[in-house]
Amino acid sequence: MAHINLPPNLPGIIGPLTLRPETTKPLSEFTEILMKGANSLSMGERELIGTYVSSLNDCFFCENAHGALAQHYLQCDLSLIDEVKKDFQSTAISDKLKALLVIAGSVQRGGKNVTADQVEKAKNLGATDLEIHDTVLIAAAFCMFNRYVDGLDTWTPKDKEFYSNRVAQRVKEGYRLPDTGH
Amino acid sequence: MAHINLPPNLPGIIGPLTLRPETTKPLSEFTEILMKGANSLSMGERELIGTYVSSLNDCFFCENAHGALAQHYLQCDLSLIDEVKKDFQSTAISDKLKALLVIAGSVQRGGKNVTADQVEKAKNLGATDLEIHDTVLIAAAFCMFNRYVDGLDTWTPKDKEFYSNRVAQRVKEGYRLPDTGH
Repeated sequence: MAHINLPPNLPGIIGPLTLRPETTKPLSEFTEILMKGANSLSMGERELIGTYVSSLNDCFFCENAHGALAQHYLQCDLSLIDEVKKDFQSTAISDKLKALLVIAGSVQRGGKNVTADQVEKAKNLGATDLEIHDTVLIAAAFCMFNRYVDGLDTWTPKDKEFYSNRVAQRVKEGYRLPDTGH
Repeated sequence: MAHINLPPNLPGIIGPLTLRPETTKPLSEFTEILMKGANSLSMGERELIGTYVSSLNDCFFCENAHGALAQHYLQCDLSLIDEVKKDFQSTAISDKLKALLVIAGSVQRGGKNVTADQVEKAKNLGATDLEIHDTVLIAAAFCMFNRYVDGLDTWTPKDKEFYSNRVAQRVKEGYRLPDTGH
């Protein structure tokens, strides 16, 4: 049972988002623009950054909900997503994305962990200032989402198929209200 | 120098917020509603929660910008804000607010650190479900803001008077665009 009374039968972040429409409206708009708006980082890359940070924060709901979305957008096997979470440096993703995941991992531990060297390496591999900005903001935002989900002890389905089965609807609905799609 | 090129002479979060208006618009609206919207938690209490979390995250800019706001809204001496950051249990703030700060501190370390006992104690001291929700969301949001500010190594004025001197303008402007007021 969650720490507070939440609308019933809503998984993960959907419960608190439904409880508090005042904050949910701009938060969903923010998420839509950050994760699905026009961007030189693909939606798959952005979902992978969010998935990786969620796995570092051990947030089962976000890790699997966004992992399923990353898999959908990247059109890869789910095994790649699992490998990225375990050891992304040994996977076949681009060197630029690896450099951005290093930055995202630093942000997860705390903003001061991002070093000039990490940023320089990402830039040398072609990352733009805006891509580095968005990587930091996505990583920071998932540090919020993960805490929102687990800090209220929301209902977390443990069956991974639950998340795969919701992907088509979530891709269609996006993150905006009234169907927040988280 | 910040990790990326930011608009010049803008302190802390204002630099990246100005760089990326697409995400800033909903993020500022979210912050305005979360921190200044109708709420049974006063603006001073909410700013104190944000200040406390920012100090745990060692984010000098947020800690001082929001500490100055908390002091303004609570109409207290700045020494109380400093004492809350050091050891809030020994201060004169209400027992309910202390219980909410315990929850906020748990969220800062990671959502799973919030315990049923911590929530029960806050409820027994009069905290409503919505106040507990908002405490968790404020603490989670500051874990984002703090990482956004420090993850990009933004310009952080070290003179604490800088933050006190900006309070009147920030109270007037709030968190919404075009003057985001952070």
